[in-house]
Amino acid sequence: MTAAPETTVSAQFLGLLARDLPPDRLTTDPVVLAAHATDRSGTRPQGEPLAVVHAERTEDVTVTLRHAHALGVPVVPRGAGTGLSGGATAGEGALVLDLSRMNRIRELSADDQLAVVEPGVVTAELDRAAGAHGLRYAPDPASAAISTIGGNIATNAGGLRCAKYGVTRDSVLGLEAVLADGTVIGTGRRTVKGVTGYDLTALLTGSEGTLAVITSATLRLRPLPVATATLAAWFDSFEAAAEASYAIARAGVVPALAELVDGPVLEAIDPALRARGAALLLVQCDGAGAAIEAAVVARVLAPLASAVEATEDPVEAETLLAARRLALPALERLGRPLIEDIAVPRSRLAEAAREIRDISARHGVPVFTIAHAADGNLHPIIVVDPSLDRLPEAAWEAAGEIFALALRLGGTLTGEHGVGVLKRQWVADELGPAAHALQRRLKEVFDPRGILNPGKSL
Amino acid sequence: MTAAPETTVSAQFLGLLARDLPPDRLTTDPVVLAAHATDRSGTRPQGEPLAVVHAERTEDVTVTLRHAHALGVPVVPRGAGTGLSGGATAGEGALVLDLSRMNRIRELSADDQLAVVEPGVVTAELDRAAGAHGLRYAPDPASAAISTIGGNIATNAGGLRCAKYGVTRDSVLGLEAVLADGTVIGTGRRTVKGVTGYDLTALLTGSEGTLAVITSATLRLRPLPVATATLAAWFDSFEAAAEASYAIARAGVVPALAELVDGPVLEAIDPALRARGAALLLVQCDGAGAAIEAAVVARVLAPLASAVEATEDPVEAETLLAARRLALPALERLGRPLIEDIAVPRSRLAEAAREIRDISARHGVPVFTIAHAADGNLHPIIVVDPSLDRLPEAAWEAAGEIFALALRLGGTLTGEHGVGVLKRQWVADELGPAAHALQRRLKEVFDPRGILNPGKSL
Repeated sequence: MTAAPETTVSAQFLGLLARDLPPDRLTTDPVVLAAHATDRSGTRPQGEPLAVVHAERTEDVTVTLRHAHALGVPVVPRGAGTGLSGGATAGEGALVLDLSRMNRIRELSADDQLAVVEPGVVTAELDRAAGAHGLRYAPDPASAAISTIGGNIATNAGGLRCAKYGVTRDSVLGLEAVLADGTVIGTGRRTVKGVTGYDLTALLTGSEGTLAVITSATLRLRPLPVATATLAAWFDSFEAAAEASYAIARAGVVPALAELVDGPVLEAIDPALRARGAALLLVQCDGAGAAIEAAVVARVLAPLASAVEATEDPVEAETLLAARRLALPALERLGRPLIEDIAVPRSRLAEAAREIRDISARHGVPVFTIAHAADGNLHPIIVVDPSLDRLPEAAWEAAGEIFALALRLGGTLTGEHGVGVLKRQWVADELGPAAHALQRRLKEVFDPRGILNPGKSL
Repeated sequence: MTAAPETTVSAQFLGLLARDLPPDRLTTDPVVLAAHATDRSGTRPQGEPLAVVHAERTEDVTVTLRHAHALGVPVVPRGAGTGLSGGATAGEGALVLDLSRMNRIRELSADDQLAVVEPGVVTAELDRAAGAHGLRYAPDPASAAISTIGGNIATNAGGLRCAKYGVTRDSVLGLEAVLADGTVIGTGRRTVKGVTGYDLTALLTGSEGTLAVITSATLRLRPLPVATATLAAWFDSFEAAAEASYAIARAGVVPALAELVDGPVLEAIDPALRARGAALLLVQCDGAGAAIEAAVVARVLAPLASAVEATEDPVEAETLLAARRLALPALERLGRPLIEDIAVPRSRLAEAAREIRDISARHGVPVFTIAHAADGNLHPIIVVDPSLDRLPEAAWEAAGEIFALALRLGGTLTGEHGVGVLKRQWVADELGPAAHALQRRLKEVFDPRGILNPGKSL
């Protein structure tokens, strides 16, 4: 569909919203529009969005979608706008449906280890609220302090703890969502098991706002681990560190996190870190067996690493993990980081890193790499000159080769950030024509007029 | 749609299959047809199926479906026929598509901790093959020794270890499946993370053969736990045992299994067991922290139970678990067990058990209950006289009240067995009209002529 409805339709649409929404929900203030046109991908589509609706309750969403559906107006659902793939960008003629004011934790049941939350709840706040009951919300995207649950569900966000605790989907028990025509549906349930009907909860999770707008989520909480044990190991090469991560898996240990940081990233954070090694592997084990597992990991790493440090003290652990947490701020000092997000079968991690280095050299584009090693999820980061209007051709070509590499190794274009607008041109290659066509037909069932986040995901 | 195509269509269909399939795939032998008309639900629809196709490769499935789609012939996909909800039953005019000969493990990668298997692989055999590499296939439905991976995926089967390791869906990374018209699609990937496109893998998992026929599955394997510790605790009532299971969760322990067995089941197994208590709670912790966690569980149980036994020896553990494993064979000695399968939020387990007892008394129908306590998944079992042609009215009414109870407590009709034919009349109550209508529209996308397992699930 085309992005821009006719002016008269736009005026009619805004008139209906003004009539049917409570007074403080609708805005056409150009400053607000500009702020809601882009996200942390830095991508900005042509033209300005039509208006922003700040939804405060499910009814605001149903009213907005009912009118948008009737008039064929594109709607871009939005949480905190922290997405890295351009999934929440809005151009000419689109309505931005901002859900960040729907930020109440409606229920937190310690006995059932679940929470019912609105989509605008900030992920770290839910985790904090759960912590008061000895529980936690396991998915921990790096953006947890600023991103919302709705956005996490829209992208099926990952994080550091996925290998042991799963991705967002594995913590979503049920949803309330509004279809394109304003119909409210409930999916899933309050139980950890249940197989009545098709799994709409999983289908909506990761659908990037193209199938429905999530207005409430029932989320699984898990007990806080009783102990953690953390190791930092230094290696002479990224490949050696990757091989060490395979050895941990072969030893039967499932770490809570296993993060790999390459030499260029260490250099960017602090040359003193780079002087200690060409790659850093951070491993954390948690739970009652944390110390025992960490001892196994230390034994596995000893002959492979040039140095290993270990601690069971949470404060010392944070010091070790700082090298991972400081990676992005350090790269932001160098320019505008474009964070790629491929995943490969985890035994291909070393091979992927080697080929990424070749791609980097071939195109003369520096690539900085961090990885969630236990998931085979790499974030190759290309840093570009922020003064440039558009991505240099060489960076674009290097990114394309990195995606092709991921698919060649049996992996995926996007492990946890989503397709958004940035990776759309490669989606058909990954899905294959039959599954791609099927997905488009599913989209039509949910959204026959194609108003929900058009131009994203598929 | 009606189940019986006209005779001429049937003859034409069989002619095409005979022409296009290798010689040993198609059978119309009445003995084979009778054996493939029912499953372990004991339900048998009216009339005989038309024929059985014993598929040996994906092409056999595409040939069969292409002709069935063109002629509108209903197709019932089937694994080992161990389902308990009637999902694989086939009546007048249906073609049974038997996948049990597609039973090869195509690949088992210890490094990537995954296996690629055909749908007819028996679940326990995959687990055994994984064991040779220090790995296991975590989902462990009670039927694992006789059921197939394809059937497990079709019902999103659960088992004893779900609370810690998830259900079948959590171990399915990707699928090859054939749509109703014979189109082959690939879903998912070989990586543990990936968010390109909609989650068709999860949508097909649990769809009970109504959306597509699975011809291959890429499955996640996990390390075998380094240790297990097992406890058996006796209580004066089922409710007291359920309360004890909540206390374990509140203590922050996630056991690998937590099985509850009620007094009537203990009595059926061995009156000496019943003499020890009115309910038995079996708990197993696993992994490096198993002994530490079991000590916490023992401390929690001590003031609540009348007796607690514990062991870290695997052979002694099997002796303790025998009371759970012997439940079904013991009930089969009493008659024909109808195994219900509701799940409730786990803090409502005691309440559910109390109400089930009331329902049992009100209808004069004995109900035997076992439960996966950590999932809130109860199996109330009604044992009926096997000489009866049909279910007594009182048993039917009691089952209906048990389903209504599950929904009233915020639970589900089926935690892990599927809807099949037996629970169809209650599905709309659980899903609600909007989600139910949406699910039907999704079904039409996959199977526009409604040939795949008609009359099941939705």
